[in-house]
Amino acid sequence: MILTVDLDNEVPIYQQLRDQVVEAIAVGELRPGSPLPATRALAADSGINFHTVNKAYDLLRREGLIRLNRKTGAVVTVPDPHPSFPADWAARAKTLLAEAVAKGMPTEELLATCRSVIDSFANNELEDNS
Amino acid sequence: MILTVDLDNEVPIYQQLRDQVVEAIAVGELRPGSPLPATRALAADSGINFHTVNKAYDLLRREGLIRLNRKTGAVVTVPDPHPSFPADWAARAKTLLAEAVAKGMPTEELLATCRSVIDSFANNELEDNS
Repeated sequence: MILTVDLDNEVPIYQQLRDQVVEAIAVGELRPGSPLPATRALAADSGINFHTVNKAYDLLRREGLIRLNRKTGAVVTVPDPHPSFPADWAARAKTLLAEAVAKGMPTEELLATCRSVIDSFANNELEDNS
Repeated sequence: MILTVDLDNEVPIYQQLRDQVVEAIAVGELRPGSPLPATRALAADSGINFHTVNKAYDLLRREGLIRLNRKTGAVVTVPDPHPSFPADWAARAKTLLAEAVAKGMPTEELLATCRSVIDSFANNELEDNS
């Protein structure tokens, strides 16, 4: 997995790292049991501050997407969403969709965007398996 | 428009206020030209700190959803999305969808959730017009 950060992006670097790991899990590039790069190695290779990498990994751990272990390092977990996850997720989706509607984006375009993103995850996974 | 905040929610209060205004615009409860409550009055009525209300309004202004005017107060603008808005929005939608996929939510459920949220905006608007 190649992790990159965009210093000009207003999204904080730890969040960019977290988002890339999440997307790598979504497309199946990282699977349950997959190891993440060691924090010190990733910090050294990428030039990102060690504490920033740690912050990203800690967020992923709190979100239940990875587990951290002194021996094995960071490893992707088997998905085990909290029962409240779908409702929490729907609330955040509502806020994001509301913003696009408030900005005048046509609703068909919003659904088409969501569908195309989801298809891109699935297609990537198919390629990965072939 | 009734603005409420949930002090137990981990979403910051200014963000909760911002999200509620965005949703009120999305459902058509607030339309271009609609005034928002005066910041001092809203702060006094809701018990929310004046600076928190100001922070929410300033975020909405920077997002281009309202304009602030010494004379008229805060007023909802006509939607005028920056050309980069759809791509920016799609990137954020990708991150949010990836999180749900990584958490093991079925993709059909994600699309159904998005569709139902969008329908709820439209239905609310229809009721509002009737």
